[in-house]
Amino acid sequence: MTRVEIIAIGKELLQGQTQDTNSSWLAKRITALGGVIKRVVIPDDDVGAIAQEIKASLDNGARIIITTGGLGPTFDDMTLAGIARAITRPLIVHAGALEFVTRRYQEFYEKGFVDDPKIIPAREKMAHLPAGAEPLDNPVGTAPAVFLQTRQGVIFALPGVPREMQSIFELIVVPRLKELLGAAIYLEETVNTGVKDESVLGGLVEEVMKQVPGTYLKSKAAGFGPAIGLEVVITAAGADKKEIEKKVTKTKELLLVLIKSLPTRTGG
Amino acid sequence: MTRVEIIAIGKELLQGQTQDTNSSWLAKRITALGGVIKRVVIPDDDVGAIAQEIKASLDNGARIIITTGGLGPTFDDMTLAGIARAITRPLIVHAGALEFVTRRYQEFYEKGFVDDPKIIPAREKMAHLPAGAEPLDNPVGTAPAVFLQTRQGVIFALPGVPREMQSIFELIVVPRLKELLGAAIYLEETVNTGVKDESVLGGLVEEVMKQVPGTYLKSKAAGFGPAIGLEVVITAAGADKKEIEKKVTKTKELLLVLIKSLPTRTGG
Repeated sequence: MTRVEIIAIGKELLQGQTQDTNSSWLAKRITALGGVIKRVVIPDDDVGAIAQEIKASLDNGARIIITTGGLGPTFDDMTLAGIARAITRPLIVHAGALEFVTRRYQEFYEKGFVDDPKIIPAREKMAHLPAGAEPLDNPVGTAPAVFLQTRQGVIFALPGVPREMQSIFELIVVPRLKELLGAAIYLEETVNTGVKDESVLGGLVEEVMKQVPGTYLKSKAAGFGPAIGLEVVITAAGADKKEIEKKVTKTKELLLVLIKSLPTRTGG
Repeated sequence: MTRVEIIAIGKELLQGQTQDTNSSWLAKRITALGGVIKRVVIPDDDVGAIAQEIKASLDNGARIIITTGGLGPTFDDMTLAGIARAITRPLIVHAGALEFVTRRYQEFYEKGFVDDPKIIPAREKMAHLPAGAEPLDNPVGTAPAVFLQTRQGVIFALPGVPREMQSIFELIVVPRLKELLGAAIYLEETVNTGVKDESVLGGLVEEVMKQVPGTYLKSKAAGFGPAIGLEVVITAAGADKKEIEKKVTKTKELLLVLIKSLPTRTGG
């Protein structure tokens, strides 16, 4: 399984002004593509802090790193500087990225979004990429997204505005991820157990995972309050769809057999 | 300022099944108490991964670490084992915690929530705390929360269910945080700038932060679309309320003066 890590950047996330929904959205999409998210981290808006987390992700063995946020024109948009420091490459003006930024501000000027199309330093900054990086088209905003191949893994740097991030992800990142992840299939099935006690259900879940390697089971409350029955979410991923389907079915059957064999049961 | 880090634990957060709202909620509350959140991280449900992030937080200089999730009875609830490994202390049965768990299951049995009040190993597990830890009353669930003092900082381990986490935070954690953080005051004010271009506003924001040290300004879109005016959120924290109020007022006035001095301005 390919290890993926997500780094969400922005002080507003750390001050509780903005809920980070990007990481959860990406986690769901990438899990469905067969990637395994092993860590999500929100560092401070600080070149050193960002570099530290990029390095940690690469050291953890992440083959795919996705960052969100910090690509814009303001002084606290430091993602590319953080990435550059982590992989010890210089930041240099990328001609294609500069062309993109120039064109975008010209369009925004014509639409009346900005007062002047001139490429002032704050705008040019968005075209300073780590050496060897490739700018990715941002169909919505002014900052290009960035793709980088390193010896340890690849890095996608995406904007933080959800609709920009999502549109770049679907259009440009997904095809590349499919290639990186291979023909990975992910299946998820939720079972209503009727069991209300997690301390009892936990033992059965552990037993099922031992007997059917390669599946993951997680119990969760179907609603609020301790009296409510628990659900178990069964997940499995791999290259062979038939095999995974068989595995999930076997897991579900075994779980239900074990639940039926419980000595005392109320409700259900 | 006191550095605080949050560690949210649970594979369901990494698979995108559940949105982590706890970290953002805690960030807002702790920021308002004068703490500075420097990092939020979601590691995998794995003793080694949890221990690695706890160690990283302590090494980063965090004086307060708050974990959420992973305190329950199931095999994948590994938070206390992760903390114990990070600070190299053994996990031992805590008499007070065991008494709490026993009492809670007796109550749940009497209410019909569980079929048997017996303290099976999965339940006893919740009373295995790192040596030297103090159990904290959980008024809602079965797992006690945990407080730990280490040489480098303190650790609060809270449950992952939001209503359990929030009630323990308000009742027990807040009074302790107030003591740890001192009489810190936090102020936040949002200014509608009328400026639509972040690449222009960024320069002004940077200038204001230079001229009024100790304030933090962050521009953000007031809504969707590049044509919409930007807001600036001014934040400042410290021990002296009067001084902070003065600082925020000065910051706001300076920002508005700089905006008025912009050569061309559309809208506003």
